Amino acid sequence: MSVVGIFDSGLGGLLTARLLRERRPDITILYYGDTAHLPYGDKSPAQIRSYVRGIVGFLREEGAEMIAIACNTASAVAYDTACEAAKGAPVLSAIQPALSAFERRRYPEPVGVIGTYTTIRSGIYGKALQSIDYVVRELATPVLVPLIEEGWIDHPATEAAIDTYLTQLGEVGTLLLACTHYPLIEASIARFYAKRGQKVSLLSTAALLAEEIARIVLPAEGEGTLSFWVSDDNPRFLELAQHFWGAPISPALAVR
Amino acid sequence: MSVVGIFDSGLGGLLTARLLRERRPDITILYYGDTAHLPYGDKSPAQIRSYVRGIVGFLREEGAEMIAIACNTASAVAYDTACEAAKGAPVLSAIQPALSAFERRRYPEPVGVIGTYTTIRSGIYGKALQSIDYVVRELATPVLVPLIEEGWIDHPATEAAIDTYLTQLGEVGTLLLACTHYPLIEASIARFYAKRGQKVSLLSTAALLAEEIARIVLPAEGEGTLSFWVSDDNPRFLELAQHFWGAPISPALAVR
Repeated sequence: MSVVGIFDSGLGGLLTARLLRERRPDITILYYGDTAHLPYGDKSPAQIRSYVRGIVGFLREEGAEMIAIACNTASAVAYDTACEAAKGAPVLSAIQPALSAFERRRYPEPVGVIGTYTTIRSGIYGKALQSIDYVVRELATPVLVPLIEEGWIDHPATEAAIDTYLTQLGEVGTLLLACTHYPLIEASIARFYAKRGQKVSLLSTAALLAEEIARIVLPAEGEGTLSFWVSDDNPRFLELAQHFWGAPISPALAVR
Repeated sequence: MSVVGIFDSGLGGLLTARLLRERRPDITILYYGDTAHLPYGDKSPAQIRSYVRGIVGFLREEGAEMIAIACNTASAVAYDTACEAAKGAPVLSAIQPALSAFERRRYPEPVGVIGTYTTIRSGIYGKALQSIDYVVRELATPVLVPLIEEGWIDHPATEAAIDTYLTQLGEVGTLLLACTHYPLIEASIARFYAKRGQKVSLLSTAALLAEEIARIVLPAEGEGTLSFWVSDDNPRFLELAQHFWGAPISPALAVR
């Protein structure tokens, strides 16, 4: 097994693909960004399940032997649908690897969880972490995604937003970055805590998902490739793709 | 005629309603926020037209004698649909009042236009202003909406974003705020230019639409009321409503 299908509502999941590629260059990655339907956070669960069914079927037809859901919203509402559509291929959600990490090792408390409104409102991380006896503090940090998508990684606006949000979250021992985009600003977040002399363990669902895939997939000969599809090929999305993948990435094939 | 139906993909149009109310407290306003389908920028024109048809029909049935489209995207792609669905009632888009203002009076050039990606990419303001011989500079400023929706009006992150965007836009004689949300940060934008000793005329499509409605609608006896519908009553939207309307606003009636 060395062909992994990764999908997301947009292109943030390319960051998971990139982290996976850094660890396991032998794995072939098929990436699907459902750019015609983002953001999933605004859609009904039934609608999201119907998108997920189509995407997983497509990735399986293209040769994916394993499916990884990089999107938090799809992970929360359409995991069973993805398993059904995967017809026997294993499916990993963005959520499971994070919870396994917190079970395997005891991280310092309280555990802060930051993500989009949809993720935080779903309470999916908070409830799961509380069920394994962690004290949890959750905060929706909706401004961070648009700042990152604008490419403002080391920008004063992003620093100011991080400052306000993490101050509002209060003291934590561990911070879980529960959004595909956030690893791009992990260094700024680390700086926030370092400036205050606070020791905080930083974990991201994107990196934990990449690690879990790397752990499971058998080694393959030679170097893997990346294939990349989007459902809407708006030029802005192609700029963003480069941002998350960390290098120019083309051609992107649009499917509808 | 003293009952005006105003709609938007979300709640930003409540700012137009508020500006209208300040000028003409006698007008009764029916407001519809299509919160189940926002953001319109991601939807196909056919899909947006079908939403607009439903909304305009609804507002007419509720008694609207005139329809105002506060949303830039809907104004750009569904004006004819709104006119058809209005069955003879006059329809104002967000675009016409702005262009009339630039025709009535000669504003200092170059004219800067800022808005969302969708609005700027459509080129709707740029092309129209060029057709009446204005030199135009357009810039998409996508981070501003989420910052405003977070309530960060006088926040350092918003100041930093304004700084970067307006510097990138370059020197202008007039700045058109072509997004329903932007009047909330008009004071910060004015400060940016004042600090640099630049005299810039600020215009907003939201205020120009409110002025145009106020100019057209006949005076009525007594005080008008506000009725307010949303298609999805997510608690976050109700917080935002208060923000745009400038005071607590309830009850919001959800229709589907």
